[in-house]
Amino acid sequence: MTCALIGVGLIGGSLSLRLKQLGKVTHVLGVDKNPKHLQQAFQRGLIDAERELAEAVEESELIILAVPVDASLTLLPKILDLCTEKHTVIDVGSTKEKICSVVRTHPNRRRYVAFHPMWGTENSGPEFATTQSFEGRAGVICDAEYSAHDALLLTQELTKELGMHLLYMGSREHDIHTAYISHISHVTSYALANTVLEKEQEEETIFQLASSGFSSTVRLAKSHGAMWVPILMQNRTNVLEVLGEHIHQLQLFQSALEKCDKLALEELIEKANAIRAVLDHKPLR
Amino acid sequence: MTCALIGVGLIGGSLSLRLKQLGKVTHVLGVDKNPKHLQQAFQRGLIDAERELAEAVEESELIILAVPVDASLTLLPKILDLCTEKHTVIDVGSTKEKICSVVRTHPNRRRYVAFHPMWGTENSGPEFATTQSFEGRAGVICDAEYSAHDALLLTQELTKELGMHLLYMGSREHDIHTAYISHISHVTSYALANTVLEKEQEEETIFQLASSGFSSTVRLAKSHGAMWVPILMQNRTNVLEVLGEHIHQLQLFQSALEKCDKLALEELIEKANAIRAVLDHKPLR
Repeated sequence: MTCALIGVGLIGGSLSLRLKQLGKVTHVLGVDKNPKHLQQAFQRGLIDAERELAEAVEESELIILAVPVDASLTLLPKILDLCTEKHTVIDVGSTKEKICSVVRTHPNRRRYVAFHPMWGTENSGPEFATTQSFEGRAGVICDAEYSAHDALLLTQELTKELGMHLLYMGSREHDIHTAYISHISHVTSYALANTVLEKEQEEETIFQLASSGFSSTVRLAKSHGAMWVPILMQNRTNVLEVLGEHIHQLQLFQSALEKCDKLALEELIEKANAIRAVLDHKPLR
Repeated sequence: MTCALIGVGLIGGSLSLRLKQLGKVTHVLGVDKNPKHLQQAFQRGLIDAERELAEAVEESELIILAVPVDASLTLLPKILDLCTEKHTVIDVGSTKEKICSVVRTHPNRRRYVAFHPMWGTENSGPEFATTQSFEGRAGVICDAEYSAHDALLLTQELTKELGMHLLYMGSREHDIHTAYISHISHVTSYALANTVLEKEQEEETIFQLASSGFSSTVRLAKSHGAMWVPILMQNRTNVLEVLGEHIHQLQLFQSALEKCDKLALEELIEKANAIRAVLDHKPLR
């Protein structure tokens, strides 16, 4: 099967690399506005050739759309315009409500599967693409009722090969969940980095002390704005709701500390410790 | 050299295990109010025998105090009361200003070295003690001018063997730095866990989606209150200052999102990305 890879970055590149390794795709045509990324992708074997968008779609059966979520809104309708019954278009964006609404009435909407693989790192670009990805991770298919049966079957087959487990939900529901489980983590990491960097202008010693706990908490603050500004903008209503709750939770700690209220602090921490069950993949209650 | 280990948990147990492996201590006498921990510590070879506090001090040259920082305030003066010129007492607590002030005028203050190894995990107890610790990490010695020369030399020798690099600073300065580099990370993780757990009461699906980014950001929320409530209480003035700044930084994101101000969001994220240089250029293992 020939695959058109639109956007040859970390996610698209990793998908391509692994699907080629698994023998699920034989030939990958790369489309990207960044010539350096195309060159790197070719050198690393993520793609076999470069193409313009229309050519790539025409020559392929599978189209993977892996660009920042603002660019997806423009590109997906264009791609669907070019699609025939032989095509399946899968996107990998972290927001789903807007993109699903943009193409809802498109005559070729059925060729599109709204997909979100729950994998990524704080790095971007084809140089970081890896076959060590996706396995064991969740993948979400949104608004499946608008996709053609064969397009869904292909997506299920590919994700099964990748070792992912699939969940199905509405695109609106998806965006609420990801606000809690992913987008807020990025906002808190960015804000924590800025908190410390604000101080660092005065005191350089801080960084000689940085421990693994700190590193773990701010790791996501390395993530690029080119990818995350569009995600936060598209999901701003949900992110604002979660952010409001998070600031409230921080204020509970603030208030307990201000009042020297040891008991309140103990209760807040004991409550938070319940996350252990979640992270260790045990049932919560 | 015989060592008295007061508190046979993760940090003390790991120190003991590694120092024994390196041949720097030959016999370890464990003191702990938790009989189960003493038993586990003995079974895992973290200690060679159990003792009461006074006996342990009398029979040893090196005393490692590795209990929660509120218990240290009571125990350290008691230990120093029992000390002679042959003893060196090293604590491993995450706060230093209060403990240093408590013993400042103690006649045996010189036998004490205020030490903070920048290593830990979200787990507690002797069962998690490991030799895979401390190497490559920073260790801080506070208020070194109040410690005897030979006690400092022993601490330097032991930490060198452990592969740590030492920093020296005032105990007050130490507590400001750790508020930024460690304590705030715990507060944000706890608050983030509570934010998500608050929601989970309504929607259980969230947790099926948890990604590695989320796990990384909330990992510290597993940390036990028995250790962290005393740390936050002792360092509350500094933690409150950092927490105020952190809430302010989150509010900058909130405001940018409320106003749909893409440019402001880009600037905030670009600023936060500078943390990459810090995380990548320092030994953070």
